[in-house]
Amino acid sequence: MARVLNFSAGPAQLPLAVLERAAKEMTDYGNTGTSVMEMSHRSKAFEGILHKSKDDLRKLMAIPENYDILYMQGGASTQFAAVPLNLLGDKTAADYADTGAWSDKAIKEAKKYCDVNVVASSKAEIYNHIPDLDKSKFNPEAAYFHFTCNNTIYGTKWTNLPEVGNVPLITDMSSSILSEPVDVSKYGVIYAGAQKNIGPAGLVIVIIRKDLLELSKEKAKKMTPTMLRYDICAENDSMYNTPPTYSIYIAGLVFEYLLGLGGLDEMKKRNVAKADLLYGFLDNSKMFKATVRPQDRSLMNVPFITGNEELDDKCVKAATAAGMINLKGHRSVGGLRASIYNAIDLDGVKTLVNFLEKFEKENA
Amino acid sequence: MARVLNFSAGPAQLPLAVLERAAKEMTDYGNTGTSVMEMSHRSKAFEGILHKSKDDLRKLMAIPENYDILYMQGGASTQFAAVPLNLLGDKTAADYADTGAWSDKAIKEAKKYCDVNVVASSKAEIYNHIPDLDKSKFNPEAAYFHFTCNNTIYGTKWTNLPEVGNVPLITDMSSSILSEPVDVSKYGVIYAGAQKNIGPAGLVIVIIRKDLLELSKEKAKKMTPTMLRYDICAENDSMYNTPPTYSIYIAGLVFEYLLGLGGLDEMKKRNVAKADLLYGFLDNSKMFKATVRPQDRSLMNVPFITGNEELDDKCVKAATAAGMINLKGHRSVGGLRASIYNAIDLDGVKTLVNFLEKFEKENA
Repeated sequence: MARVLNFSAGPAQLPLAVLERAAKEMTDYGNTGTSVMEMSHRSKAFEGILHKSKDDLRKLMAIPENYDILYMQGGASTQFAAVPLNLLGDKTAADYADTGAWSDKAIKEAKKYCDVNVVASSKAEIYNHIPDLDKSKFNPEAAYFHFTCNNTIYGTKWTNLPEVGNVPLITDMSSSILSEPVDVSKYGVIYAGAQKNIGPAGLVIVIIRKDLLELSKEKAKKMTPTMLRYDICAENDSMYNTPPTYSIYIAGLVFEYLLGLGGLDEMKKRNVAKADLLYGFLDNSKMFKATVRPQDRSLMNVPFITGNEELDDKCVKAATAAGMINLKGHRSVGGLRASIYNAIDLDGVKTLVNFLEKFEKENA
Repeated sequence: MARVLNFSAGPAQLPLAVLERAAKEMTDYGNTGTSVMEMSHRSKAFEGILHKSKDDLRKLMAIPENYDILYMQGGASTQFAAVPLNLLGDKTAADYADTGAWSDKAIKEAKKYCDVNVVASSKAEIYNHIPDLDKSKFNPEAAYFHFTCNNTIYGTKWTNLPEVGNVPLITDMSSSILSEPVDVSKYGVIYAGAQKNIGPAGLVIVIIRKDLLELSKEKAKKMTPTMLRYDICAENDSMYNTPPTYSIYIAGLVFEYLLGLGGLDEMKKRNVAKADLLYGFLDNSKMFKATVRPQDRSLMNVPFITGNEELDDKCVKAATAAGMINLKGHRSVGGLRASIYNAIDLDGVKTLVNFLEKFEKENA
C-alpha cells in the first residue's frame, strides 16, 4: 500500500529516507555482515553508532560542553521518578507547573519522593492554556522546577521560560524536541521520549548539566534503582547494561537526516510555515476552530473541533479514507488533532488543509 | 558483505528470515502504509501485534493461564530492583544463589531493599560450576529465592531446580529462554532480557504467577517507580505508557518463526545436537578445553581455552578473518566463548568445529 499521512501524536511518522536506509541495512550494516540489532554493544561498529549519534545530537541542539547526553529507557514516565530520585539532594520539596495529563502524572510520581508545590495549573480549564506564573508561589527551598514545555494532548506550548533564578529548570520535551532550536543552557535537565521526533518508543534522551550529575552521584536517594541513576548512566557512557542499541541507531539516522536538511533553524522555519498554514486555515474556517489561544499554540500538536461530535467523527473517518490517519483528538479534548512533527512536511499539511477545506464545503 | 556467523553473547544473531521480513515490512506493515515503528500503540494494528506476540509466547513456552506475560524495559538489570521492590511483601529478606556476575549484580541491587541471604556461591572458583545447595542455609523467612538459571559469561547452567517448597522461585533466564522447554509452573517469576534469543536489546519479558501480581498490588514498596510495578504493567496490558513497540514486533516475529520450526521441543533437539557437537570436539581436542564440568554445561554459551593466551588471541583473530565473529571470551574467564543461541544452526556449529579442527592441526 502507498504510505499514508500519519498525524499520530506518537509513536509518529518518521522520515521515509530513514526507514528506507534502515530497511536496506537490516541484514548487513556497513559491511559488517550483521544487523545493528545483532551487534555486541561493545563492538567497534556499535560504539561508532553510539558516539556519532551523540555527536550529531550535540551539534543539532548546540548542547554546551558542560552538559552530558544520556540514553535511557522506559519512556518519559520513568523520568517522572528518576528526576526526584536523582535531583532532590538534601532538599525535600520541588516546584511543578501543571499544564496537562503528563505534568499531572509527573506530579503524582514525584509525590512519592518529596513535597510537591504546584505553582500553577490550568487543569480546571482542561489545560487549554499555559497559566501565568506568580513568583510568590514558588518555593524558595525547591530542589528544582519541573514543567512540560509542549503539551501533546492539549496542543499548548510554553513560549516564555519560567524565571527560576538558580533553581534547576527541568523539562519534559518529548513532543517538541528537535522541532526548533532551544537554549539548552537555560535548563538543568531536558528529557524526551523518542517516539515523536526522534525514533522508536522506549528510548529516552536525557540532556543534563554536569553539576547535576555530581548531585546525583553524591545525593541520589539510596533506594534509587541503579538503572535510573543519572551519574551511573553517564559514567558508563549509557552502557551500564546493554542499551537499546537498535533504537539508538534509528535515532542516529534521524539526527544525521536533520543535520542534512540544515539543522534546527531550518526545522523551525519549516515547522512555523506548517503551523501557520494550519492555524491560518482554522482561524478563517466557519466550521473548524483551534482550541488553543494564539499565544500558547504548539508548533507540533494542533487540536481543533467543529463543536459537533458527529461532524468531528465524520471528518476523522473521511480523512482516514483519504489516507490521513490518526486525526482523532484525545478523549479529554475531543474533536480532531493533527500532530505535525518533523517528518510531516509542508506538502503533508497542505494536503490536510485542502482536505479540510473540501470537507467544510461539502458539509456546510 | 555476506552474513557472518555471529557468536556474540548478546545482542546476538537473529534468524535471517526474521530480519528479512522486518526489512520488507519497514515502510509498510500489512498494508497499513506505515512502519510498525510509526504506529500508535493504541491502533488496532499494533494491538494485534502485541496480542499475537503474547499468545505465541504462551504457546511456545506452554505458559499456564495463572501466569501473566509482561513486556517491560530497561534490561534484566532493571529487574534486579523490580523483583525486591514488588515481591518482598511484609518480609525483609530474600535468598539468592551467586553463580556469576549477573547474580552478583542482582544481589548488590537487592541489598538496597532487603537482607540478602546468599545460600551458595561459586565466586571463589570464578563461577566455573553450579554450587551444591544446602537447605539448612535457606532462610525460612525469605520472600523469594533468586537464581540465574544460565550464566552467560561462565557457560554454566542449573540442571536441577532449587527445591524451595512454597517460597517463590525467581529466575533470570536472559540467556537460555526459548532454548528448550521449561516447566513454567515451577516458577514465581521468569524474567529475560530480549537481546539473546528473542530480539532487540531493551525489551524485557516478565512471566509472573498471578498471585504475585496481587502481592505487588497490595504490598509493593511505596517508593517503587510506577514503571517498575508489576501489577500496574499487568493491569495496563503492558501499555501503561508507550511500550517499546518495534522491539515487541521483532520479538513477535521470532516467536512466530520458532513455532513454525516446531516450537521448543524442536529447539531443544537442535540445541542439544549443536552443544553435543561442540563439547564433543572440545573434550577430544588436545589443544582446546571446555572450562565447565559436564553436568553444569550451558546449551547456549560455551567457553573454552587453549591454556595459552597468545594462542587464544590468534585463534579469535583467525576465526574473525574466516567470518566467525565475537568468539573472544569474557575477560574474567579469558580464552574463547561461542554463544550458540537459537539463530545459530547446526551448520553454523559445524563450520566452527571444522575451523577449530583445522586451527588445531595447523598450530599443533
